[in-house]
Amino acid sequence: MQKYKCTISYDGTNFSGFQIQPEKRTIQGEIEEAFQTIHKGEHVRIYSSGRTDTGVHAMGQTFHFKSSLMIPCQNWKQALNALLPDDIHVQNVITVDDSFHARFSAVEKEYRYYILNRKDVDIFKRNYVYQYPYALNLSYIREACFHLQGTHDFTTFSSAKATVKGSRIRTLSKVWCHRHRDILEFIFKGNGFLYHMVRIMVGALIDVGRGKIHPADIPYLIKAKDRRLLGQTAPPQGLYLWRVIY
Amino acid sequence: MQKYKCTISYDGTNFSGFQIQPEKRTIQGEIEEAFQTIHKGEHVRIYSSGRTDTGVHAMGQTFHFKSSLMIPCQNWKQALNALLPDDIHVQNVITVDDSFHARFSAVEKEYRYYILNRKDVDIFKRNYVYQYPYALNLSYIREACFHLQGTHDFTTFSSAKATVKGSRIRTLSKVWCHRHRDILEFIFKGNGFLYHMVRIMVGALIDVGRGKIHPADIPYLIKAKDRRLLGQTAPPQGLYLWRVIY
Repeated sequence: MQKYKCTISYDGTNFSGFQIQPEKRTIQGEIEEAFQTIHKGEHVRIYSSGRTDTGVHAMGQTFHFKSSLMIPCQNWKQALNALLPDDIHVQNVITVDDSFHARFSAVEKEYRYYILNRKDVDIFKRNYVYQYPYALNLSYIREACFHLQGTHDFTTFSSAKATVKGSRIRTLSKVWCHRHRDILEFIFKGNGFLYHMVRIMVGALIDVGRGKIHPADIPYLIKAKDRRLLGQTAPPQGLYLWRVIY
Repeated sequence: MQKYKCTISYDGTNFSGFQIQPEKRTIQGEIEEAFQTIHKGEHVRIYSSGRTDTGVHAMGQTFHFKSSLMIPCQNWKQALNALLPDDIHVQNVITVDDSFHARFSAVEKEYRYYILNRKDVDIFKRNYVYQYPYALNLSYIREACFHLQGTHDFTTFSSAKATVKGSRIRTLSKVWCHRHRDILEFIFKGNGFLYHMVRIMVGALIDVGRGKIHPADIPYLIKAKDRRLLGQTAPPQGLYLWRVIY
């Protein structure tokens, strides 16, 4: 049995998230079905770096799988792309050591979030950015980004629904925001992310940009460990799992 | 009864074209349903500048309608956008003279066609551009564009299926191609277009760009009036009805 690491992109619009579920169209479900075809009916399980929610996209999601078929990496890519629907694309397949695990071997993950910040709706981008019509102050947002960077307990920025057992301490090595014309690009790089954490951070950064939250209050909000102090979670369609770093 | 001209954009991906059809999701069907709601069940017919096919988009399609409701233009826009699905967007509504007709008053139409010309697939653009992986010679394409410009019988560039009764002579005032990084943008402006004409021209221009057709042969192909001399019709998802000029 050879172990492989596979890097994929997908358009999350028409999926009920990554994780396989009965009767639902999921990314894992489509990929495992393609593997089953290649393995003549035998089920092959894939192990991803983590889930993504309904409507969330990926530029560089990763998973590992094992196979006894003697297929070169380039041919794995071709065979999978030939079988997969056109909203999932295999970018690359490489062989890995048996100790590799797509989730546990990951050192960092990078997420990006895109806001189209203008009054007029762009219907062609409705599934690919969050369209936000009100003016946002980039300097305030960047000051808040700076306060989010580093090692903190991110309880304030995790879903109230989530019942995490372990620590909620995570280290974000990069939190930053760029403006390219009317697009705001948020970059989040860190060693781990809690459930809905990126979208809750973006929701808070929007409130900072509008002047509802003062950027200097971010450290106090972190210390309070209370999700209820923040407003809305930003919608899924602006979020991209950008890459997984090993 | 006041007559209005309405300008809309739509993402053609999830529609069976513009024209209303039973049991199918169409742009006309969705808009007439919104009007029926506004008019408390009374049917209101809309008259467009022309149809678009399944998968074809519009940045500036136009239609006219009549109503006895005393609603200011800005409120028409808001009311329609509130009722329409998120893949149709009303850009603007203005009052027009009773002699105005969205189709017959049009002087020219502009279409644009987008090719993503690179090896790697971009799954996020699969419904919005034609992804073409082979190198295309822009100088050849531009020479061919020049030959398509002007007044010609465009029988060679019309669908063999179409049974047009009248003349197939049309005047194209602009045919041109720009490259922005890996995107090729084709612009076609003219006083009328035959069925599939833009997509057949793009198919021919691709064959010119690959070297399958010499640009100097375009005048002879036009004169031959024979669709069978050309190759494939370019796919719908790269095509946008850009604007209608009155």
